[in-house]
Amino acid sequence: MKKFIGVDLGGTNIRAAVVQENGEILCMKKAESHPERGAEPVMETMISLIESLDGYEECEGIGMGIPGPIDTKHGKIIVSTNLPKLIGFPIAEYIQNHFQKPVFMDNDVKVAALGEAVLGGGKGYPIVYYVTISTGIGGALVIDKKVISGQNGHAGEIGNISIDRNREKYNILNVGAVENEASGTAITRKGREVFGDQIKNAGDVFELARSEDEKAEKIVEDMAYDLAMMFSVIGHIIDPHVFVVGGGVMKGKDVFFDKMEKHYRTMIHDGMQPVVFKEAELEEPGIVGAAMLPMTNL
Amino acid sequence: MKKFIGVDLGGTNIRAAVVQENGEILCMKKAESHPERGAEPVMETMISLIESLDGYEECEGIGMGIPGPIDTKHGKIIVSTNLPKLIGFPIAEYIQNHFQKPVFMDNDVKVAALGEAVLGGGKGYPIVYYVTISTGIGGALVIDKKVISGQNGHAGEIGNISIDRNREKYNILNVGAVENEASGTAITRKGREVFGDQIKNAGDVFELARSEDEKAEKIVEDMAYDLAMMFSVIGHIIDPHVFVVGGGVMKGKDVFFDKMEKHYRTMIHDGMQPVVFKEAELEEPGIVGAAMLPMTNL
Repeated sequence: MKKFIGVDLGGTNIRAAVVQENGEILCMKKAESHPERGAEPVMETMISLIESLDGYEECEGIGMGIPGPIDTKHGKIIVSTNLPKLIGFPIAEYIQNHFQKPVFMDNDVKVAALGEAVLGGGKGYPIVYYVTISTGIGGALVIDKKVISGQNGHAGEIGNISIDRNREKYNILNVGAVENEASGTAITRKGREVFGDQIKNAGDVFELARSEDEKAEKIVEDMAYDLAMMFSVIGHIIDPHVFVVGGGVMKGKDVFFDKMEKHYRTMIHDGMQPVVFKEAELEEPGIVGAAMLPMTNL
Repeated sequence: MKKFIGVDLGGTNIRAAVVQENGEILCMKKAESHPERGAEPVMETMISLIESLDGYEECEGIGMGIPGPIDTKHGKIIVSTNLPKLIGFPIAEYIQNHFQKPVFMDNDVKVAALGEAVLGGGKGYPIVYYVTISTGIGGALVIDKKVISGQNGHAGEIGNISIDRNREKYNILNVGAVENEASGTAITRKGREVFGDQIKNAGDVFELARSEDEKAEKIVEDMAYDLAMMFSVIGHIIDPHVFVVGGGVMKGKDVFFDKMEKHYRTMIHDGMQPVVFKEAELEEPGIVGAAMLPMTNL
């Protein structure tokens, strides 16, 4: 069975693994990334980390997932808050020159989407739309095992979709941006507005909803409707076979997910009803998806 | 130069043409479709029409554009208001058996999108999003000269995207569906609400806006903002290289189009600004695009 190297390059840690084409992780290690030291030191850390993996020499290629918009063609970071000194650095070229293996990179959400599309919840479906609901909300379209990144790597920036133009402006995102209304961060904010500092995270609001607190149930009901609006615009544009939904907020799926899907199905044409909603399945979609980049591109 | 047959099968007429791969129409004819007679008589009319075209024998394949959702894989109509007796009939197979040439079919909007993407406003761009604003509003995503039709042929049903959840419910479409707020039909309705029966169509409202009637300008301003909301959600999902915009309402582009684009550019991330807006260019996008189906699939 073929093997590939998957790398998850973040602001705190670099994680790397040898992954089989069936998605099994054979060996995984991590190191601190220390991005403040600059691009080349980070590259050297990544190289050492990969070389410490059992069986790295037999891998067919290397794939990387990195936060923020990525220039997938030239293998560079376009914008980054966590890795500012790596912006514009020819990461893929540097790593490729060292290992003499093909190197591919993409945004971390898109890479997770690829993993879920090929081996997780989207396995076997031609058109997969992946959504992650966590502190933020992101998405990615995967058609026939290829991620559609868009002209500028911004395809899937669905957190900025306005689901209601009559909301407050919170930040740089659009008024009513779904990320400001239905992400983990948004649910925490809404929870605090009602319940005060006892709310530490979205999970606390979900817990109150489970105990049938009416105010918490209202927050969850609004969240379910707002998310349905977002899924509805994606549905009318893409008409995917499956929505695969992941991210930390899915820990509260028992309180909002069925409600959301029910609203969604009232917002679409009859002919679109065959769409399926599935939960993300992989334990390590980022690492496995990164390893799928060379697998699906070679 | 290779030649293909393009067919536009509508409820009133069938039009067919021999089209060169550069988009030039060498010979075009039409016949009444009489769909009330049933599927086979319509097929025989189409066959006679194609056989009346000079040079049809030398064509490499046949492409058809048909209104409504199409099962592109099996070459059948899924839903149709104009051609109800043809629903489920194996159109592609019937025509292919007769001519012994490959036959492809897709929805008329998607076929026009393909024509515009390959030879019109989207020529040379990898990711094209085509929007038609006419009595209704429809769209299609074309990536590397392939139309993305979705699981059920409903990808691009953007008329049903809600751009404001605080509007009235008019019909089966969603509350605030952009087709009910910014299509030619919608502008006519809004014009009549203000100006009465003197408004025959959207063009009358645009004409009043040109003469700086404030109420007409308000209708146009709202339309521009509503359309920008729709383009914004498409942009965040697809991040295309170009939006190509066609349809009869573009006759009023001088009054709304720049306003719309200006709003759009306030609704997207900085990194998405390279997107270009272009007007549809082909005189016969439906026929030419239909002929592009065999060209891009063979």
